[in-house]
Order: sequence, then structure tokens, then C-alpha cells
Amino acid sequence: MSRGRLEAFSDAVLAVAITLLALNLAVGGPGHGSLLRQLGQHWPSFVAYLISFFIIGIVWVNHHALVQTIASVDRTLLFLNLVFLLFVVLIPFATATMAQYLTRGGQDAQVAMALYGVVLEGMGGSFAAMFGWMLYRGATYEALSREARRAIWSRFSLGALAYLVAIAVAFVSAPAALAIIGLESSSSSAEGRDPGQ
Amino acid sequence: MSRGRLEAFSDAVLAVAITLLALNLAVGGPGHGSLLRQLGQHWPSFVAYLISFFIIGIVWVNHHALVQTIASVDRTLLFLNLVFLLFVVLIPFATATMAQYLTRGGQDAQVAMALYGVVLEGMGGSFAAMFGWMLYRGATYEALSREARRAIWSRFSLGALAYLVAIAVAFVSAPAALAIIGLESSSSSAEGRDPGQ
Amino acid sequence: MSRGRLEAFSDAVLAVAITLLALNLAVGGPGHGSLLRQLGQHWPSFVAYLISFFIIGIVWVNHHALVQTIASVDRTLLFLNLVFLLFVVLIPFATATMAQYLTRGGQDAQVAMALYGVVLEGMGGSFAAMFGWMLYRGATYEALSREARRAIWSRFSLGALAYLVAIAVAFVSAPAALAIIGLESSSSSAEGRDPGQ
Amino acid sequence: MSRGRLEAFSDAVLAVAITLLALNLAVGGPGHGSLLRQLGQHWPSFVAYLISFFIIGIVWVNHHALVQTIASVDRTLLFLNLVFLLFVVLIPFATATMAQYLTRGGQDAQVAMALYGVVLEGMGGSFAAMFGWMLYRGATYEALSREARRAIWSRFSLGALAYLVAIAVAFVSAPAALAIIGLESSSSSAEGRDPGQ
Repeated sequence: MSRGRLEAFSDAVLAVAITLLALNLAVGGPGHGSLLRQLGQHWPSFVAYLISFFIIGIVWVNHHALVQTIASVDRTLLFLNLVFLLFVVLIPFATATMAQYLTRGGQDAQVAMALYGVVLEGMGGSFAAMFGWMLYRGATYEALSREARRAIWSRFSLGALAYLVAIAVAFVSAPAALAIIGLESSSSSAEGRDPGQ
Repeated sequence: MSRGRLEAFSDAVLAVAITLLALNLAVGGPGHGSLLRQLGQHWPSFVAYLISFFIIGIVWVNHHALVQTIASVDRTLLFLNLVFLLFVVLIPFATATMAQYLTRGGQDAQVAMALYGVVLEGMGGSFAAMFGWMLYRGATYEALSREARRAIWSRFSLGALAYLVAIAVAFVSAPAALAIIGLESSSSSAEGRDPGQ
Repeated sequence: MSRGRLEAFSDAVLAVAITLLALNLAVGGPGHGSLLRQLGQHWPSFVAYLISFFIIGIVWVNHHALVQTIASVDRTLLFLNLVFLLFVVLIPFATATMAQYLTRGGQDAQVAMALYGVVLEGMGGSFAAMFGWMLYRGATYEALSREARRAIWSRFSLGALAYLVAIAVAFVSAPAALAIIGLESSSSSAEGRDPGQ
Repeated sequence: MSRGRLEAFSDAVLAVAITLLALNLAVGGPGHGSLLRQLGQHWPSFVAYLISFFIIGIVWVNHHALVQTIASVDRTLLFLNLVFLLFVVLIPFATATMAQYLTRGGQDAQVAMALYGVVLEGMGGSFAAMFGWMLYRGATYEALSREARRAIWSRFSLGALAYLVAIAVAFVSAPAALAIIGLESSSSSAEGRDPGQ
């Protein structure tokens, strides 16, 4: 399989998933109280939309950078990419569930936030597995320098760690866990390197 | 990142968003009165669909024209493009909410229309920011003439102003605000220039 | 604008619209009677899905053939293409409404079927307008022979006529109107010419 | 029609269908009991998501491999590809229905599972028909060796047989039928050959 088609299919799945995020914003409509109040009570959905949108957006940029370095696509890589997309497609569901329960408190909020964290961890983990497999197979166009590899791995580890911490914190405070995930995604989007360099 | 992939991903998001607009047209179904009456009472949804469809359609044409002039894609441009898409993806939600409340009158109609205006303003503003960044970085294939730049900026300013006026007018009359947005989108689609020239 | 991007965007809209058709197949679920009975009562949805799926599929093939002959894309063609897509995106809504009311009889079934016919007529009409504009502007790669033009126009006229007849028949018998639309779409898919020849 | 556009359209439909699978995961929300319990009772949806996701994913890989060998696209192949996509688009509906009824037992579970099997059989059968037509027309870039053809046909036969057995078993035990489908899809994904070789 060519890189191009792997990329085109993954792009389409990412684009549909990022657009479906907004389906969860719908308010109750007339008869459910004043619209301003409905929108106000709905704030977790808007925050969740914002965070998940940028998480998928950044993953799209990183996926592109990763695929650019592939010399050949083998069946293992295709399988890992499918696992990665399986978690991406779960994000709208996990985001909606998390937003619904965030302000409810109690065990439900903890479970919903942990579910969100687990889906993100799965996405990050399968993405890291793709990178690891490519290094193991030597399937990169240009050998990455030791420093570049170390930088990428430390970035992956930081992300994976942040999601793990968020899952743990979810059982103490769901909003605090969300804040950790939001910070991690904004820190990774603020990184100064131009893509493709 | 290549222009091509930026374009492909943005296209896919725009295409999904424009198609999801129609999800809001569904009528109540059997048992909710005669179909003709249901369709008649539903007219704000059809008007809203028409306007939002052409707004996204025109933005797609303009986005293409913009991306054509990019010499290189840097991380700032990617980020601005994500912000732009974030507002595009909100359009089906803002359209549905606006249509639901348009004929209700009162504060709810004002809030719903203002929300619609704010989403459009955000989309237009982030699009203008992409153009401004490209000029600042000099990231255009061919230097645009002073006249061309001025023409584009005055077009952007007109659009941004129209949406601002619509937001203000929304608090007096929601249907009047919708008329302003509709006029602005039809005037920008009627502009005589061929794309790419 | 290049033909390629016009095609890519139109393809994406067509692909999303054709996939959304299946959203209307969902049955009531447990507690709404035996599944077999639910599926049985749902037969208009399955017939409607089948017909609309092939209508969009054939339009996709024809759109491709049309775009292949374009020498240059001007703003009028872009606008006509948007109008064409506006009707395509309405098909899942019109299909769902038609299927819901088909077996209800009375005025509702007539209105629902006429709505479906009008949407198809709008799609066919805007497609014919694109072809007419291209001939008028001479924007075809190779001049089409008089015979080829006549053949295409008579095909368009037949389709437009079939939909018009269906709209009229809808006010006598909705199922008969659906049969006409189904026959027209199967006759156009059975045509023997290879695409691109 | 070029292979490229056949591929692009099919990819988009497959990508939307695979992403819509997750729409069926939504839980009832606050007021429907503890979230943990809701997720627990929802387990058939998660299993069904997992299986259908990999079935569509593998079909995407196989579709790519098939299209790679096409020398020219004729109208019959386009039609068979549309029939193939018609069944692909039915998968989210069939998956949701199957998951809703799986643990209900009785005739409903049998019907739901048989429906799922029939949709998969239709998808596999139309895919095999595309391959058969290409061999018949000789529309392959390189003549496939007799061994390669025999290997592909035996793979198709195994898949078709597995789905047929699953449909039959569905009338004895729906979960057992699901296990057969899950095993078949995991065995076909575990096959060692690199794609494109």
C-alpha cells in the first residue's frame, strides 16, 4: 500500500471524527428554559469540544509528520494505524459522555473522565507503537538522528504520562483531570518546531 | 507540511460540515400534524440551511484561493487553520439553534441569532488572520500587488463589519439580522471575479 | 480553481450524503414489538434507501464524466456546482420524509413524494445547467460532436421529464410515483456506455 | 473513469461508515442509573463496534489491493462497486441493531444477528463479484498466476462460508454466531502477507 492512500483514509476518518464532535453541542431547544441558561449549563460541552478538537487537530499534524518518514507500509503498520483510528473514532463518544457527567460529581464524573483519559491514552499509545515499529523495521526515509529520536520519545512519554496522571486524578477530581488534559494538549500545540523540520 | 494535505483535510471537514447542515431539516414525522403544515412551520430551518450552505460553499472557494498562494506551511498557519475549522464545524450547531428560536421572539431569538453571528465572525476573523499572517511572513508564491491586497482587505473588512452589525441588530430584531447575513453572503457570492485570477 | 479540487470536494459531499442515507434505517429497538415485524413495517425505508443510493451513485459517475470535459472552472460553474450539491445534500432528508409517509396515504404521502421529486428535479436541473453553461462557454476539452451533445441532452430531458411526471403522479398515487423514479434510475444505470467513452 | 477517483470515492464512503459506527455507543446519560452500570450493560455495543471496525478496516485494505490490479474501470465494475458500497453503508445500521438485541435472546436476537450476517455476506459477495469480473474481463495490470488466483478465491470462499455458517448458527445462538464472525475477521487480519505483494 502506498503512503498516499494510508494518509487519505486516515485524513478522512480524522476529518469526520473532528466534525462529529459538534453534534454533542445541541441544546434541548424551546421548552427547556431560556436559551442563555441552557447554553450556560452546557459549558462542559463547549470546553470538552474545544479540548477534543485541538487534540484531534494536533494528532492530525503529528500523523502527517510520521507518515512522511515512512519508506514502506507493511501489514503491521496498517494494523497499528487501524488501532490508532479505532481510538480516534471513539473520541466524540468519550467527549460527549465526559461532558454530560463532568458537573454531576460523584463516581459517575470519575468514571466518565477516566473513560475519556483511557481513550486518549489508547490513541497516544497506538501512535507511539506505530513510531516504535517504524524505528524497529528501519522503515524511515532518512535515518533519524539519535537526538531526534530521543526528543520524539520524550514527547510521547510526556503525553502518555499526562494522560495516565489525568486518569488517576479523575478519581479525585474530574475537573482537575480535564485541566491536566487541556494543559497537555495546549503545551503540545504550542511547541515551536515547524512541522516537517 | 505540504499545501496539498492542508487542503485535503480542510476540504473534508468543510464537506462533512456542509452535509451535516441538512440533519436539522428533519420534521417531527407522522403524528405531529399534517406534513404540509410541519414543513411550513419549519421555514426558518430551510432559510437557515440555504444561507449556511452558501456561506460554507463560498468559504471553501475562498479557502482554496488563499491556500493556492501559500509558499510554505508553518506551524502558526496550521494553528490558525485549525481555529478556522473549529468555527466552521460549529456552523451546523449554530444554524440549528438559530433556526429553532428565530420565530420564538424575545430574548431567546436574540441570543440564538447573536450566537450564529459570533460563530460566523469567528470563522471570518480566523480566515483573515491566516491571510494577515501570510502577508507578514511573506509566505505567498507571488508578491500580491498593493491594489490586490487592499481589495482583499476591504472585502474582509466588509464581511467582518456585516457580521458585527448583524450581531448588534440581533438584539433588536433577529430576522433583520438574518437578512443582513443573507445579503452579505449573496453579495460575496455574486462578485464577478473568476477564482484563481 | 483546478478541476481536481472541484472534484475532490464534490466527491466528499456525495460520499457523506450517500452514507447518511442509512441513518434513516434505524428501527425503534426493544419494546417496539418483534424485530421482524418492525423491519417489515419499515419496508418503505429500505426501498427508499435502495433507490436514493443508486440515484446518488449514478450522479457521482455522471458528475465525474462531466468534470472530465471541463477545460477551465469559472465562478459561474462553481456556483452551479454548489446549487447541485445543495440538492444532493437534501436527498437524505427528502428520502427519510418520503419513506416515513409513503404508506400513510392521503395528502401527507402526496406531499412527501412530491418533495422527494422536487429535490431530484432540482439536482437534475442544476446538473443540466452545468452542462449547458459549459457548452455555452465552450469550456470543454474537446468539442463534443453534434450527435454526442444531442444524446446527452435527450438523456437529461428524459430524466427531468421522468421526475416531473413523478411529481404529478405523486398527487394521484405516491407509490406509483416512487416506481417511476425507481425505473428511471435503474434505466439510467443500465445504460450500456462505458464511462469516459 | 480513472482508478484514482473510484478509489477516492470508495475511501470516503468507507471512512464515513467506519466513523459512524461509534454513534451507536452513546449511553442513556444522567438519570439512567450509574454510568458504570450503563457501560456494563452496553457491552454488546462495544464488542460489536470492535468487530465491525476491523471488518471495515480489513475490507478497506483488500479493496485497495484489488483496485491496484485494475487496468481499466468499466461500467459493470462501477456498478458492482456501488453494490459493494451499498452493503458497507448498511454496516453501522446492522451493527447497531445486532448490538441492541444480542442479549435479549429469543427470536429477536436471532433475526438481528442473521441481518448482520446477511449484510456482511452481501458485502463479501459483491467484493468477490468485482474480483471475478476483473478476471473474466482480463482487467488486471499483470496476469495473476494460477496459484495467486486460487489462493484469493479460497480466501473469499472461506469468508463467505464463515458468514453463511454464522447466519445459520444465529438461529441457534446469536452470541455464538457473533463469535464466528469475530474469529473470521481476526483470522483474516492476522494473515501474514504484506499488502501489495
